[in-house]
Amino acid sequence: MPNETQSYDIVVLGAGTGGYGAAFRAGQLGLKVALVDDNPKGLGGTCLHVGCIPTKAMLGSADLLDRMKHSSEFGITADDVAPDPEAIAKRRDKIVSRLVKGVTSLTKKNKVDYILGRGRLEGPQQVRVATIDKDGKSTGEVILKAKDVILATGSRVKSLPGLVPDGERIVTSDDVLRSAHIPASIIVVGAGAVGTEFASYYADMGAEVTVLEYLPGLVPLEDGDIRKEMERAFKKRGIKVITSARFDPSAVKADESGVSVMVGPEGGEPSEVRAEQMLVATGRAANVEDVGLETTRAVVDRGVVVTDGQMRTADPHLYAVGDVAGGLWLAHVATHEGIAAVHAIAGEEAEEIDYVKMPRATYSRPQVASIGLTSEQCAERGLKTKVGKMPMMASGKAVIEGDTTGFVKVIADAETDELLGVHMIGHHVTELIAESSTAMLLEATAWEVGAAVHPHPTLSEAMGEAAMAVDGKSINF
Amino acid sequence: MPNETQSYDIVVLGAGTGGYGAAFRAGQLGLKVALVDDNPKGLGGTCLHVGCIPTKAMLGSADLLDRMKHSSEFGITADDVAPDPEAIAKRRDKIVSRLVKGVTSLTKKNKVDYILGRGRLEGPQQVRVATIDKDGKSTGEVILKAKDVILATGSRVKSLPGLVPDGERIVTSDDVLRSAHIPASIIVVGAGAVGTEFASYYADMGAEVTVLEYLPGLVPLEDGDIRKEMERAFKKRGIKVITSARFDPSAVKADESGVSVMVGPEGGEPSEVRAEQMLVATGRAANVEDVGLETTRAVVDRGVVVTDGQMRTADPHLYAVGDVAGGLWLAHVATHEGIAAVHAIAGEEAEEIDYVKMPRATYSRPQVASIGLTSEQCAERGLKTKVGKMPMMASGKAVIEGDTTGFVKVIADAETDELLGVHMIGHHVTELIAESSTAMLLEATAWEVGAAVHPHPTLSEAMGEAAMAVDGKSINF
Repeated sequence: MPNETQSYDIVVLGAGTGGYGAAFRAGQLGLKVALVDDNPKGLGGTCLHVGCIPTKAMLGSADLLDRMKHSSEFGITADDVAPDPEAIAKRRDKIVSRLVKGVTSLTKKNKVDYILGRGRLEGPQQVRVATIDKDGKSTGEVILKAKDVILATGSRVKSLPGLVPDGERIVTSDDVLRSAHIPASIIVVGAGAVGTEFASYYADMGAEVTVLEYLPGLVPLEDGDIRKEMERAFKKRGIKVITSARFDPSAVKADESGVSVMVGPEGGEPSEVRAEQMLVATGRAANVEDVGLETTRAVVDRGVVVTDGQMRTADPHLYAVGDVAGGLWLAHVATHEGIAAVHAIAGEEAEEIDYVKMPRATYSRPQVASIGLTSEQCAERGLKTKVGKMPMMASGKAVIEGDTTGFVKVIADAETDELLGVHMIGHHVTELIAESSTAMLLEATAWEVGAAVHPHPTLSEAMGEAAMAVDGKSINF
Repeated sequence: MPNETQSYDIVVLGAGTGGYGAAFRAGQLGLKVALVDDNPKGLGGTCLHVGCIPTKAMLGSADLLDRMKHSSEFGITADDVAPDPEAIAKRRDKIVSRLVKGVTSLTKKNKVDYILGRGRLEGPQQVRVATIDKDGKSTGEVILKAKDVILATGSRVKSLPGLVPDGERIVTSDDVLRSAHIPASIIVVGAGAVGTEFASYYADMGAEVTVLEYLPGLVPLEDGDIRKEMERAFKKRGIKVITSARFDPSAVKADESGVSVMVGPEGGEPSEVRAEQMLVATGRAANVEDVGLETTRAVVDRGVVVTDGQMRTADPHLYAVGDVAGGLWLAHVATHEGIAAVHAIAGEEAEEIDYVKMPRATYSRPQVASIGLTSEQCAERGLKTKVGKMPMMASGKAVIEGDTTGFVKVIADAETDELLGVHMIGHHVTELIAESSTAMLLEATAWEVGAAVHPHPTLSEAMGEAAMAVDGKSINF
């Protein structure tokens, strides 16, 4: 029996935030679009199923726990405050299910054909899908012909060479997000967003936490001032931090009593670090294999599909968005890449993806949020800058919220006053960076952001004050 | 003995947010400036001493209490969660002291002569100050000559004609902020920001709350959709809401058993509302009396000093900023008015105060934050609009934070796409409106705000989605 063949304007392969963002926008523009994904649970990809959403649900519980431990400072009495890890895990899973259901239901609203199955490119304009049902059982095959294909196959957790997660002693975020277990002690390898978030979570839950980071700072790609403040804050919380850490991944020992690794500074004497578990948070690998890329002219370089500023690969009718295309490996970036690809295909006004104008967020305590260039990057590029830095200590709202950790740092061009970068660390700063995103998209100056009225009392005032401070004209500090 | 006479570039009369904002900026611009205020505790005016700050401190405790009551939903167990009103009041007072101390210390940094005493205009360019010491005792008199004077004498609570607060049964926000008492039941008269905030607070503390509002909705100056959502949310919380309420203020009865008032709809049959206390939150009166305005050409109209867009009164060397000049009666607006006045005096680039581009914030639960025109105002002006509305139900972060009340509503010009108004109600929205403030200052279109990348998962995404929704192109709902 011949395979069924269907024709589309766009076929999107992979239904993470990049994939469904692209598919929904294509539907909104009146294009005939198919969205292919092999997760029987529904849309959402890494972010929704095993990334942003379940981790933030856990961190939300951890933040409330921390606040409750200090509730007497707020004039609230309570006895026997304690986490219930099983209940936290259940809530996490319930939130994921609810949001997956919600976003999956939007395929109809946006007139997207949602096809459950594993797709594979057969040239740049055809996808063969091994279809499955809701239980993951094979139901046959379908061939999708498309004017344009958007590859959005995402990524998977990646360990270090020689360090093999066993799901028990040596675990990844995938394992943690399937479990409710809180170890007595844990070694977190890697201090990017994922590593610092889990370190923060486990410390709140009462685990003894040691963070190992190869580079010289926590959140190592952030501005130097942020890295320093983060390390200070983590150490104050009792989290052990070893930066510039050197160890042999293949020499990590795991047995029934726990995990052990010899860690030293580069060229220095190593000493043993032991814990019940080790969490490997050393980044992700793009899913470029086994998707049929070899049948196209698309180029894979350093593990990711190479694209231009509109997410077009070397094959003019094949686009790649989200983690499979590298970039910033962030859900919200994937969404906008997906939209940009569809707009390019549909001939809408051209949008060039500009990663410098995309915000980054880390939901540890303290939180980190940033956009644009760091002070180090400005120096490398020889840019003359002026800097304003508002300490959260001077924010009335931060005092009211009982957490004055951190600051907002604004970097502006010394001559043009244009915003070059904004770097925030502290309570709730992930909610404050959107303003900078809009401001940078509009090529705002620091003067303009300072002239914009920020409501009082809010944490957002720190942005206005830091912007005024680039010219030494802050009012409240 | 003759009075001491001192000469200044600028004398600022009143050290609330408008006054100290003006004085600090004047100092930063190298002007010789005196700041005169008669509160021996320090700078800050209504906002810091008996307004924004102490109320938000109390509301911060109330929010934590509410969250703790539902902590089992977050997987946190606790017994005997209860507020300690004395401790909440102590924390409130401690926060006020800390922030007053902080801002008062900035007079030195900004080279401002801070003069403690009661000042009175003697013509537009001279202020006579009856000086006092830290205990409020008279220490003499000083005459300050100025090239320009900025009047920033603020405002005081105002009751209804015939309704006289006694500080016991019939109280104002001033009384509440001196006390730790939680009544068993309370009638809140007036449902603007102050009234709704206290209603929200007392409901959290376990009081039976009835809100009486003369106009047809809670937060009556907000967009109609916000008013409706607020009423729905308050009723769901068990707060009794009587809008379009009619009663005779002079017939309110207060005795040892409580307060009683006959309330009816306009022209309808009134019925009795009783409670332990009544909070009068019916607005504020500008402090225009007894400051010597009659010695100047400044015009007082409908109780406030009339100014132009740069806060200049009819007397060219006398400016008025903050509540004494009416406007929006908000601390952050006063600050920017103070800055605008100083910039005008100093001959800096002209800034016209534009109240349409100033955010408003209410810290009840749910919170309200808005900027620009309401739908009703757009209709009155005959503006053709398009509207995008993102329900918080569709926000992953709102689900994670356990509060999906509310929405973000974006109103854009149907033809130019320029933002006309943004109206938010829900958890933490007071932190989200700053983006719209910067966007409106930069005359952004809804398309631009939608194209700006909002980090995922945050509540701030609701702004991006609502902006995309004005053209029917939201991704996540």
